[in-house]
Amino acid sequence: MRIERLKGFAYGGDYNPEQWGPEYWVEDMKLMKKAGVNLISLGIFSWAKLQKDEQTFDFSWLDTVMDLLAEYGIAADLATATAAVPAWAYGRYPDLFPVDKQGNRLWYGSRQTYCPNSPSYHRLTAALVRMIGERYKDHPALAMWHVNNEYSCHVSVCYCDTCAAEFRTWLKQRYGTIDGVNASWGTSFWSQWYYSWEEVMPPRQTTTQHNPGQVLDYQRFMSDSLLNCYLIEKHILREITPDVPITTNFMLEWKPLDYVKWAKEIDVITWDSYPNPAVGVHPARNALDHDLMRGLAGDKPFMLLEQSPSQVNWRKVNTVKYPGLNRLYSMQTIARGGEGVMYFQWRQSRRGAEKFHAACITHTGDEHSRVFKEVVSIGKELKELAELSTSKIEARVGIIYDYENWWAVEYAPGPSGEVSYRAIVLDYYTACYDAHIPVDIIFQESDLSAYDVVIAPLCYMVRPSLAQQVERYVSNGGTFVTSFFSGIADEEDAVFENGYPGPLRTVLGIQVEEFNPLEDHMYNVIANREQAGESTVSLWTEYVRLEGAQAYAEYTQDYLAGEPAVTRNTFGEGAAWYVSARPEAGYMRELLLHICTEAKVKPLITAPLGVEVTIRTGSAASWMFILNFTREPVTVDLGEYSGTDLRDRRTVRGKLEVAGTDLRIIKLD
Amino acid sequence: MRIERLKGFAYGGDYNPEQWGPEYWVEDMKLMKKAGVNLISLGIFSWAKLQKDEQTFDFSWLDTVMDLLAEYGIAADLATATAAVPAWAYGRYPDLFPVDKQGNRLWYGSRQTYCPNSPSYHRLTAALVRMIGERYKDHPALAMWHVNNEYSCHVSVCYCDTCAAEFRTWLKQRYGTIDGVNASWGTSFWSQWYYSWEEVMPPRQTTTQHNPGQVLDYQRFMSDSLLNCYLIEKHILREITPDVPITTNFMLEWKPLDYVKWAKEIDVITWDSYPNPAVGVHPARNALDHDLMRGLAGDKPFMLLEQSPSQVNWRKVNTVKYPGLNRLYSMQTIARGGEGVMYFQWRQSRRGAEKFHAACITHTGDEHSRVFKEVVSIGKELKELAELSTSKIEARVGIIYDYENWWAVEYAPGPSGEVSYRAIVLDYYTACYDAHIPVDIIFQESDLSAYDVVIAPLCYMVRPSLAQQVERYVSNGGTFVTSFFSGIADEEDAVFENGYPGPLRTVLGIQVEEFNPLEDHMYNVIANREQAGESTVSLWTEYVRLEGAQAYAEYTQDYLAGEPAVTRNTFGEGAAWYVSARPEAGYMRELLLHICTEAKVKPLITAPLGVEVTIRTGSAASWMFILNFTREPVTVDLGEYSGTDLRDRRTVRGKLEVAGTDLRIIKLD
Amino acid sequence: MRIERLKGFAYGGDYNPEQWGPEYWVEDMKLMKKAGVNLISLGIFSWAKLQKDEQTFDFSWLDTVMDLLAEYGIAADLATATAAVPAWAYGRYPDLFPVDKQGNRLWYGSRQTYCPNSPSYHRLTAALVRMIGERYKDHPALAMWHVNNEYSCHVSVCYCDTCAAEFRTWLKQRYGTIDGVNASWGTSFWSQWYYSWEEVMPPRQTTTQHNPGQVLDYQRFMSDSLLNCYLIEKHILREITPDVPITTNFMLEWKPLDYVKWAKEIDVITWDSYPNPAVGVHPARNALDHDLMRGLAGDKPFMLLEQSPSQVNWRKVNTVKYPGLNRLYSMQTIARGGEGVMYFQWRQSRRGAEKFHAACITHTGDEHSRVFKEVVSIGKELKELAELSTSKIEARVGIIYDYENWWAVEYAPGPSGEVSYRAIVLDYYTACYDAHIPVDIIFQESDLSAYDVVIAPLCYMVRPSLAQQVERYVSNGGTFVTSFFSGIADEEDAVFENGYPGPLRTVLGIQVEEFNPLEDHMYNVIANREQAGESTVSLWTEYVRLEGAQAYAEYTQDYLAGEPAVTRNTFGEGAAWYVSARPEAGYMRELLLHICTEAKVKPLITAPLGVEVTIRTGSAASWMFILNFTREPVTVDLGEYSGTDLRDRRTVRGKLEVAGTDLRIIKLD
Repeated sequence: MRIERLKGFAYGGDYNPEQWGPEYWVEDMKLMKKAGVNLISLGIFSWAKLQKDEQTFDFSWLDTVMDLLAEYGIAADLATATAAVPAWAYGRYPDLFPVDKQGNRLWYGSRQTYCPNSPSYHRLTAALVRMIGERYKDHPALAMWHVNNEYSCHVSVCYCDTCAAEFRTWLKQRYGTIDGVNASWGTSFWSQWYYSWEEVMPPRQTTTQHNPGQVLDYQRFMSDSLLNCYLIEKHILREITPDVPITTNFMLEWKPLDYVKWAKEIDVITWDSYPNPAVGVHPARNALDHDLMRGLAGDKPFMLLEQSPSQVNWRKVNTVKYPGLNRLYSMQTIARGGEGVMYFQWRQSRRGAEKFHAACITHTGDEHSRVFKEVVSIGKELKELAELSTSKIEARVGIIYDYENWWAVEYAPGPSGEVSYRAIVLDYYTACYDAHIPVDIIFQESDLSAYDVVIAPLCYMVRPSLAQQVERYVSNGGTFVTSFFSGIADEEDAVFENGYPGPLRTVLGIQVEEFNPLEDHMYNVIANREQAGESTVSLWTEYVRLEGAQAYAEYTQDYLAGEPAVTRNTFGEGAAWYVSARPEAGYMRELLLHICTEAKVKPLITAPLGVEVTIRTGSAASWMFILNFTREPVTVDLGEYSGTDLRDRRTVRGKLEVAGTDLRIIKLD
Repeated sequence: MRIERLKGFAYGGDYNPEQWGPEYWVEDMKLMKKAGVNLISLGIFSWAKLQKDEQTFDFSWLDTVMDLLAEYGIAADLATATAAVPAWAYGRYPDLFPVDKQGNRLWYGSRQTYCPNSPSYHRLTAALVRMIGERYKDHPALAMWHVNNEYSCHVSVCYCDTCAAEFRTWLKQRYGTIDGVNASWGTSFWSQWYYSWEEVMPPRQTTTQHNPGQVLDYQRFMSDSLLNCYLIEKHILREITPDVPITTNFMLEWKPLDYVKWAKEIDVITWDSYPNPAVGVHPARNALDHDLMRGLAGDKPFMLLEQSPSQVNWRKVNTVKYPGLNRLYSMQTIARGGEGVMYFQWRQSRRGAEKFHAACITHTGDEHSRVFKEVVSIGKELKELAELSTSKIEARVGIIYDYENWWAVEYAPGPSGEVSYRAIVLDYYTACYDAHIPVDIIFQESDLSAYDVVIAPLCYMVRPSLAQQVERYVSNGGTFVTSFFSGIADEEDAVFENGYPGPLRTVLGIQVEEFNPLEDHMYNVIANREQAGESTVSLWTEYVRLEGAQAYAEYTQDYLAGEPAVTRNTFGEGAAWYVSARPEAGYMRELLLHICTEAKVKPLITAPLGVEVTIRTGSAASWMFILNFTREPVTVDLGEYSGTDLRDRRTVRGKLEVAGTDLRIIKLD
Repeated sequence: MRIERLKGFAYGGDYNPEQWGPEYWVEDMKLMKKAGVNLISLGIFSWAKLQKDEQTFDFSWLDTVMDLLAEYGIAADLATATAAVPAWAYGRYPDLFPVDKQGNRLWYGSRQTYCPNSPSYHRLTAALVRMIGERYKDHPALAMWHVNNEYSCHVSVCYCDTCAAEFRTWLKQRYGTIDGVNASWGTSFWSQWYYSWEEVMPPRQTTTQHNPGQVLDYQRFMSDSLLNCYLIEKHILREITPDVPITTNFMLEWKPLDYVKWAKEIDVITWDSYPNPAVGVHPARNALDHDLMRGLAGDKPFMLLEQSPSQVNWRKVNTVKYPGLNRLYSMQTIARGGEGVMYFQWRQSRRGAEKFHAACITHTGDEHSRVFKEVVSIGKELKELAELSTSKIEARVGIIYDYENWWAVEYAPGPSGEVSYRAIVLDYYTACYDAHIPVDIIFQESDLSAYDVVIAPLCYMVRPSLAQQVERYVSNGGTFVTSFFSGIADEEDAVFENGYPGPLRTVLGIQVEEFNPLEDHMYNVIANREQAGESTVSLWTEYVRLEGAQAYAEYTQDYLAGEPAVTRNTFGEGAAWYVSARPEAGYMRELLLHICTEAKVKPLITAPLGVEVTIRTGSAASWMFILNFTREPVTVDLGEYSGTDLRDRRTVRGKLEVAGTDLRIIKLD
């Protein structure tokens, strides 16, 4: 389901008119038009101003704003306003309060103060959403429903008694019997056996490590509990307006929610992108989330719902987006397949916790700020790109991303608390990004056969579906790559019997006998056996026994000297690679280039580090994006490509210069 | 109101005789006389030993000590003993317990365990104070009342239900209506609107940032709540002994209390100075607090009520005051206008949490310790300086210090959590100190016209009184200096409309368009336009537009290259300077010297770094203090001054050597 | 009381068969036999699987395992299974929950969740222990009782109301009257005086430092409370099986329990050794705990009950024991007098919090892992050493170790929070270790006359027994060595009157006038007066006055330049040394060598750093152990010793090479 009414790309931002008197609203509309805004997320935190007690609603001000938007031809991504419960509700309904691990309450007065399983929250939000849905269902400004906001941003876990009871219900549905729980969690260990459901508790503050199965299931339960909050709203809205798309905004680098499960319930995948704009932050960090969102969206559209036009306010130190950087990040969205670019927020607050978060209209209050001028310019550029808006990204490499794996691998007590799932995924993603090889983010249940190369970084948890697919995929000619600490545990987080990497052992042709994680000050060195190439490795090493595979690189230090470090196994028509340590970025880039080349996947073009290259392919044409995230001019070589530069309509081929913090978009021949 | 009976300077310390048997007390008196002690703070933590239940008091031991003091001619700064509630009170009156942000109780068994709004605390302290007041009102040893001790040292905030209720009362008095609160705090933001008073809460543990207006008002409320505790005692004492001065001791580098408001209620400003004695700690840190206390005192006396004769016990590592340092810091008090120097404590404890805090009588228990010998020597020196005791400090430069600003600027979520108000004030203060230019600490409501140069570092919050004064002041020929992130918010912490620096924009002739705070590893460089001088800058940079001002220095790096960094605006007869970043100390010293020179304010004399120079001016004579805080001999140049060295009565002029960790006091001709 | 049935050394590990189906158990027995296992710690966390509610027990599976052990000739160290309370108990008996300092509950679902003073815990464990005792008292596999597990590992302090009440009872027993408490704790300080028992509380969360006396007594009380838990079990078992030895396992570097008091109640001292196996960790850290255990055992046996065959899972980063290191650490146990070497655990878990803790049978599940092969090899080697198993260690140097001192010196607010008792003990211990001089760990009440040199590092608290002994000991010719911050406080943690080092002042011939602890970045230098030798010193310096002693080394920097740093006092027939700072390791080694040589104690042999040398002496023969903890071959010089190398039965004398990570055992002539 698309936002049908928008021609080309969506452009706009969060609009909180209730913070300002009506005298500002017409001025806002005019400035929005000036900036090319066509979509506004409206009223996300307006609950308290819409409802003053359980019986009394006041939509007058929102009516006015909606009418104004309609008058000015701006569409509304209208919020259900349920992200922050009004203060009046807590005195009557204390089940609203979330409770922390220690058993203490989190109070209202900030935002998102609600227990995800609170019956009062469910009832109050359902009533509000129905009211809003009925009131605006036929409003001409309505283009999309914005449910809640950034679910789990501040309360990703609650430990209250309501949650404890709901957790038991959830477990009953999953396991049927209490002995099913015992078996899954392995409660024979440490005398943790449960004899009745009432004994089961959330993983509240305790004496030392929790049962990992309990922790994993609690993460699943919490993600599901929040999803239930979303679904309560969604079902009401779908019933009232079957044709209006529904979204809720995802977040960057976000772990608490299983977005794969959530994405199935969302019509337009939207997300909030807040990369640290300081010099030196690799743009692949943000690109990965774009590709993740595109992967989550599948055939549905995805777009950026929030980014800051300059600085944010919640980092310890909040640097600005220096001139040009907002444009580069905006265009990165488009370059990676997005259908819209929006900001938080339209007009900068004078009061409240976010008053130093940048906005399109800054505290200068006028049109003359650097930031607003850039906003206007980007709006203009986006309008000119309208013909691209239905084109797609194509990739021959898939990287598997998995939330349950993420939860399990980072909770595990041992072997190393320094292992970050996101960091290892980024290692492999960045290697491809820097080699200018397009990547799709895929999932354990995705169809691998659509790719020439499939990478499963830190694939600690292997679900049966994946285990079955990988052998078939490689056997049929696919190339599979995985890293250290993969193939360890099943979906109950139980270690596979008979050694690692469990169900991947045959296809990889190895057995991993022991993990030797490295303290900060430690390292080893690996060296390729048959060609140039070596690297220090940090974080992790392994003692690997070959069972048919060949060593591509070996360790050279310590008791692992001479043992395999990177292995390659020919399996059927394909190949399976294993990387048992964490090499440097340069080595990773060369290794992935080697593997891809072997699999006949090649870089789009030749370009230096710091330059991002993508191609969007439409039904009739293709466009290449070249984004220079460095601050110096660079020269890229288009190789076999040629086309028309959209900026000056000139034909380009061969070598091409791109200015620092600038970009080129080329309509390919 | 002075301590009339003391001739010359006060000298003495905290005396806790209840920790020792009466057999020690006469010995104490003799040693006090030997050390030149004339004032003793008595019984600060003696409540439990004075009152064994709500009906039963026992003053017998205190009577004995007071009589001994009278007999030995030592005056008493007699404590009201309310700083630590006895254990017997808590079982009956649980409202005494402070409650932390998480909702958990702070227990007794340490000290200062009371909720500032506890009705029981108010009632119990009133009864005790009245009892003590009546008993000792005519005692010949009584010289001053010492109310409580170091208010807010350990409990600067309480979150209990009593405080919640009192906070609402406080808000009603401030704002009248609940909509007044809503308007001030901007509760349209994040759905925080309150519909009734009962909904308002202290900023207890919550999900993410609190409303900054709520936090600011809670800081005001807590400062006022503690002030109320003080006033309850003060009013009783004033009623009983209208002529006995009343004090309570302030603390160093102290943020939680608005001392400007407090100082109005105190007869003799006293404070506790505990600079880290480790080599390398700049003495300006302590000098600033002396000048602050002198500023708070205005026409009233101020004195040092506590310092350690050597080490303290509450730092992670507590180094000693190496030989001579106690004397230097003691004389710094005098050099900056103080009327007394006292220690914590007289005799070192054998038990309890402070047993490793240094005291005049150390654990050696005799007169032969290095520390005691220094105490005796300083006592002797002070006595010889008696003629100085009514002289004053004069300064042509005022630095504005403001508590509400401090609270607001350090809570703000964004732009940078690294900004420390005290550090930025110290930057400007130290620049003057190192340039040997005397400074008064003044306040937003002070009369600026008394100064040639007024500096308002990090003046984020500008109250109307200041905004009005500055234009008039500069227009009439004054020189005004302010720093980055100034002129941002009004007293409700609402950002001024239409850009920064708000009401200071006209007089400064600039607009600040954006803040670009710097992460730890980042820097920029600024260079003067017309004369030598450049500096790296850290922490903060800004994009400044000139609106009449001229650039004195410009940035040279990054996107700010060529933009103004330090600006000067001619306005009426005066000049207004703006420093948009944080330069190095050397640059700051040169800049302030330049600005002062332009304003015809010049250094007292020429002396190297590490040397502190002041002049006390009396009705008939003036005295110059030259304190060498370095450990090497230095040479200073007295310039136009000459006089008599008090140590050897020799005439000095021109170049003068001062030994390491030594000082000179010169009676000027 | 010995484990009579074992011939030679005990070898085995923790066995948790309840985590596995019975189909694994026979395989386990066979592999145990293969590895030379003769003792197994059985069922430590099996409570929940043995008892499903207060009335219902199920021992069937344990019967099977015990029978299997008997059948295979493996002895059982049978657990009482009380270390983790089953979940079913908490709903009925909430007094089981420990409560943290803030007043919040610690929940079950991990392990060791019980309040040490919970009446329910006492009752439930007594019932279980009686049941187990009666059932297995005559079982042929039973060799030793294993009470609970690692007491205080996770809950070393509880602050609940039950504990508060018991604490008062404990204090009544210790002090008789409430004024006895007041006197001991010095509650005249800070108004802390108690008028009734009900006012006394645990040192719960408060405003700033607690009363040190209260904290010290609470540590004593908690150690005693846990000891009471042990004694409840012990008395039942002793009654049922008077001849079966009883143990509970101690921990490495463990502070919360006064093991000296505990050891008196234990038949076989057992402990759990988990040194960080990363390269660069000094083996003396672990050797010290071995010697401590040997000292605690006295005439009783001691053995290693747990070590990991490779990595653990609870460090932030858990490196493996590289090849050979498990053997070296296992043999270190034997080399230092131990009677057994055991592992945690036999078979690696697939589920639960410890699944990444190494085990004898790894996740490979087979006999072919490096780890299992080493386990087998060590088992074989131990069997060959059986003749050594009753031999003993002899030492002429004693180092005093004291728990109450440890508690007191590390809580003290001031002079330095950086002082670690264990680190300073290690300084002196390591100096002897590196000099190859055998050491006994002794206690304040030990008979000093058994030693030529007695070292009391950081002997802050001096109990009367020690004070009396030291003068007599030195007077009779002994050599006494102590460090800075010694002789400060009595057993109530009250500072001695009339100066430091209190009762040691006469024998040391000095007075310490002041402590000057050093911040991280500070240092001083000391230099010997009459011979070569100097060292930087960190952490601490002191100003020492000589009162008869002579300066052996002096400070050379800062105001202490020329003052005594290391002193030696001739006293009667002996000598007393004082080291007032913390020198480098090399200086310490030379200093201790100098002192020992003067006292006619000499190194066993000449060997380089990193090599550990010990001698076990039996009734008919002696054996020298040479353990090379470096990874390179080293050469040692046997000096006057010669003997037979047990490995190849060849005669050795003079220079001898030992390979890296290898060892030699020589039966001496």
